[in-house]
Amino acid sequence: MSQILRQQIEKITKLTDEEFEYILSHFVSKKYKKHQFIIQEGEDVTNDFFILNGCLKSYFTDKNGKEHILQFGMQDWWITDYQAYYSQTKATINMDCIEDSEVLCLSYHNREKLCAEIHKIEHFFRKKTNKRNVALQQRILSLLSNNAKEKYDQLLQLYPQLSQKVPKHLIASYLGVTRETLSRLNSPSN
Amino acid sequence: MSQILRQQIEKITKLTDEEFEYILSHFVSKKYKKHQFIIQEGEDVTNDFFILNGCLKSYFTDKNGKEHILQFGMQDWWITDYQAYYSQTKATINMDCIEDSEVLCLSYHNREKLCAEIHKIEHFFRKKTNKRNVALQQRILSLLSNNAKEKYDQLLQLYPQLSQKVPKHLIASYLGVTRETLSRLNSPSN
Repeated sequence: MSQILRQQIEKITKLTDEEFEYILSHFVSKKYKKHQFIIQEGEDVTNDFFILNGCLKSYFTDKNGKEHILQFGMQDWWITDYQAYYSQTKATINMDCIEDSEVLCLSYHNREKLCAEIHKIEHFFRKKTNKRNVALQQRILSLLSNNAKEKYDQLLQLYPQLSQKVPKHLIASYLGVTRETLSRLNSPSN
Repeated sequence: MSQILRQQIEKITKLTDEEFEYILSHFVSKKYKKHQFIIQEGEDVTNDFFILNGCLKSYFTDKNGKEHILQFGMQDWWITDYQAYYSQTKATINMDCIEDSEVLCLSYHNREKLCAEIHKIEHFFRKKTNKRNVALQQRILSLLSNNAKEKYDQLLQLYPQLSQKVPKHLIASYLGVTRETLSRLNSPSN
């Protein structure tokens, strides 16, 4: 399974077997059950999570108790509370499993250690973070300028596998639209 | 003026005078007038821009001609169309000057060259991109979960200097609220 990680790194920079084994030795494998929490608001965020299989979500709960999906995560995606992880502060969001999931955990300490020791790993993470940046920027523009149907169509175009894995009410929360609006978009007449 | 850049880099990693001079030799200084375009939709995006002084904005124009502010930029901020810059594709947004501005331009080629040659510059850009990521994530949560007043208060708290530099209608566009809503928030009774 860890070959998924190697494939992702090698899309950006080539590794020897020894280098990959050394890198992998800094990760810890974990399994979580459906509905299990991985990050809880107010707690420490030690790890970034590379998903081997399953499906996760991170979400913010507002003062009225309403949940807003920040991110979904599927195979070969990275997910954590990046605000808390990068600054080593307490979580402001929750993260739990939509399905049984298996992840590789990379602690902040080990990420910084690997980046300091191996220039090409720092390069890999810079490039990955650039891509995340572009995705976040696109989402902001979509939230500002798209109507519900355009947001939904864009999401399915970017991540067609999401609609199979994720219940509709969670997709509605991610898009910032009501369940009723999303149901209308899913009706046969649309 | 270029010391502003050195100060920013040295918050993350120390440089010798020779190293900084070498890094700086990869930047080109440019001045732009108020209202002047720096990036135009559909054109190449060669540079990332480090702002020495002035104020810039990047924005997306939707199919109805409505402008949505993606980012403001002030002294010691970086700004460009990152989607186009990172993937070396055509611009999907515009960027122009709110005030006369002076910038240091870093081409994509020179950024990648510096990152490959100097590990600590790759480290600097990874750390800066991490911070941008967190800011983008906070903005998404604000767009999803905050009402107009909360969005406005959060913006002023994060960037108090913006309200002096940027006209109210542009702040309304950044927040995704109408000018009228923002005017009500600015009225003495609020």
